Amino acid sequence: MTPSALAALVNHQVRLAARPVGLPTPADWQFSTEPVAEPAEGGVLVQVLALSLDPAMRGWMNEGKSYIAPVGIGEVMRAGGVGRVIASRHPGFAVGDMVSGGPGVQEYWHAAADQLARIDLRLGSLTQWLNVLGMPGMTGYFGLMDVGQPQPGETLVVSGAAGAVGQTVGQLARIKGCRVVGIAGGPAKCEWVVRELGFDACIDYKAGSVKDGLKQHCPQGVDIYFDNVGGDILDDVLARIRRRARIVICGAISQYNNTTPVQGPKNYLSLLVNRARMEGIVVFDYAARYPHAVAELAGYLKDGRMKSREDVVPGGVAAFPAALPRLFTGENFGKLVLQVADV
Amino acid sequence: MTPSALAALVNHQVRLAARPVGLPTPADWQFSTEPVAEPAEGGVLVQVLALSLDPAMRGWMNEGKSYIAPVGIGEVMRAGGVGRVIASRHPGFAVGDMVSGGPGVQEYWHAAADQLARIDLRLGSLTQWLNVLGMPGMTGYFGLMDVGQPQPGETLVVSGAAGAVGQTVGQLARIKGCRVVGIAGGPAKCEWVVRELGFDACIDYKAGSVKDGLKQHCPQGVDIYFDNVGGDILDDVLARIRRRARIVICGAISQYNNTTPVQGPKNYLSLLVNRARMEGIVVFDYAARYPHAVAELAGYLKDGRMKSREDVVPGGVAAFPAALPRLFTGENFGKLVLQVADV
Repeated sequence: MTPSALAALVNHQVRLAARPVGLPTPADWQFSTEPVAEPAEGGVLVQVLALSLDPAMRGWMNEGKSYIAPVGIGEVMRAGGVGRVIASRHPGFAVGDMVSGGPGVQEYWHAAADQLARIDLRLGSLTQWLNVLGMPGMTGYFGLMDVGQPQPGETLVVSGAAGAVGQTVGQLARIKGCRVVGIAGGPAKCEWVVRELGFDACIDYKAGSVKDGLKQHCPQGVDIYFDNVGGDILDDVLARIRRRARIVICGAISQYNNTTPVQGPKNYLSLLVNRARMEGIVVFDYAARYPHAVAELAGYLKDGRMKSREDVVPGGVAAFPAALPRLFTGENFGKLVLQVADV
Repeated sequence: MTPSALAALVNHQVRLAARPVGLPTPADWQFSTEPVAEPAEGGVLVQVLALSLDPAMRGWMNEGKSYIAPVGIGEVMRAGGVGRVIASRHPGFAVGDMVSGGPGVQEYWHAAADQLARIDLRLGSLTQWLNVLGMPGMTGYFGLMDVGQPQPGETLVVSGAAGAVGQTVGQLARIKGCRVVGIAGGPAKCEWVVRELGFDACIDYKAGSVKDGLKQHCPQGVDIYFDNVGGDILDDVLARIRRRARIVICGAISQYNNTTPVQGPKNYLSLLVNRARMEGIVVFDYAARYPHAVAELAGYLKDGRMKSREDVVPGGVAAFPAALPRLFTGENFGKLVLQVADV
């Protein structure tokens, strides 16, 4: 793109205006516009095509120590995304290259080469690169394989089963020989994970007692629980774990918008009785092994053993404030993606 | 002992009369007496000399599924102990042999040979065989070595530091090269673990904020937390764990007499942020390796690198109902032992 063509572009951005109390509201965001400069020597200019909306974003909006610094007030909101190189002053990237990285909630991104990964659309679609081949897929892959350590014949339960991480975890566990039981909200999601993704069963937490559902669908108990939700459901599963069970703590979406303290698992002593383990996972630790996981998961997508579902919200960055809360109300069905530009 | 001598003996027993609500009271127990029969063919008769009083006993008094069946109403209360063989119809045991096992709260015990282990008083005293060389020592040894996996230079925190498990864990961690910080109740216990046992520091939870104490004594954070108490202290430590920390869930004495639900650790998401692990331990799983641990720990006792302290309550089985609650009020100082007969 020529300098004069760049000069015609305007970068629309969404910035954090305030630290939310409870569910984020429109008042927590502010919009800004900036001209789009040429990339500096060694830099790359990316047009953002789609952004990943993730439960973890809620944590990034809070003050305080975590595995990553909080987003500052007035800063462009942090977000993963995919885009197209539209100008490059780095020999490793050419105009037209498709890339993924962390552009934030904006339309154009000045990236350093080491912040970008090239993506191959033969391995998966653009939105799959934000889902099974992206951060949620990597989280599911390493959380399951490294922390969960599935063995054939074991029973795995995953909450948020129709969500981005859950769909990868459940299908991968099935491929690894586990009996797989999902927990999801509503009949549509439950039906989808059973019929389309091949889960053995799914418990609709909105329809009845998760405890009863676990009793019915995990009569021998639970060997691996991949937890995306926390709260009461974590306690219900803790009450049914087997000896030497592994509980992968990936998230606790039920607690992220609390205005009261986090609900600790009152059944945690089940870990003692059952000599079980509860362990946290942060995907960034596995960055060196992403290519291996991407290759394996792309193979499953190609041979049909794995499917994916993305819930793509149109409307560009302006739609971000209204789209994000859908994660916490469970309105999304599949990996929530914000479409920023036409491909 | 001759049949006629046996006939002169009376076995005093303490049986569970009711399932306690909160702290056990005298009304939860009943006393019984039985004549002492000759051992059956293949059996061994043991005179109980001392009994181990353990926090776990409180759990055995509750109904419900656990790692071991509850004690039935009307049954002799379960207890570990040490004693002397006074009659034997098994070739493996002779009159005069000193043994350990699970006699229950009574003065005489008809044991099968496979319920007994011979103990060697050259390796440790009778009460040490209920402490560092007994179940608490084994719990501390395998909980620390197998689950905690201490590395030289790491910081270990142990609660119930002056108790039976705590004293073994702290000293063993020191021997393995860790910086060791105890948590105990009152200045006497804290002073003892620092001056006598060589802990680097001890936080008196009765004197002030555990949180502040951890900040002061673990400025770099906590690599291993060996938890005997649960409750608020578990949350305080969770807030200060380091990356890849291991939390050994051995017990939760603060919660055993609750009449409300167990207090779950509201800071459990620190496991996620820190990629840390919380894992339960039940000592029975390591039975095959007890001899190895006993040999190692007895070596430390002999060369002076390890000390032990037992709090021996006199009065025989009649003193049991009043002695047990001392564990939960923290009145005991060291491993609580009930002396049943003179050695």
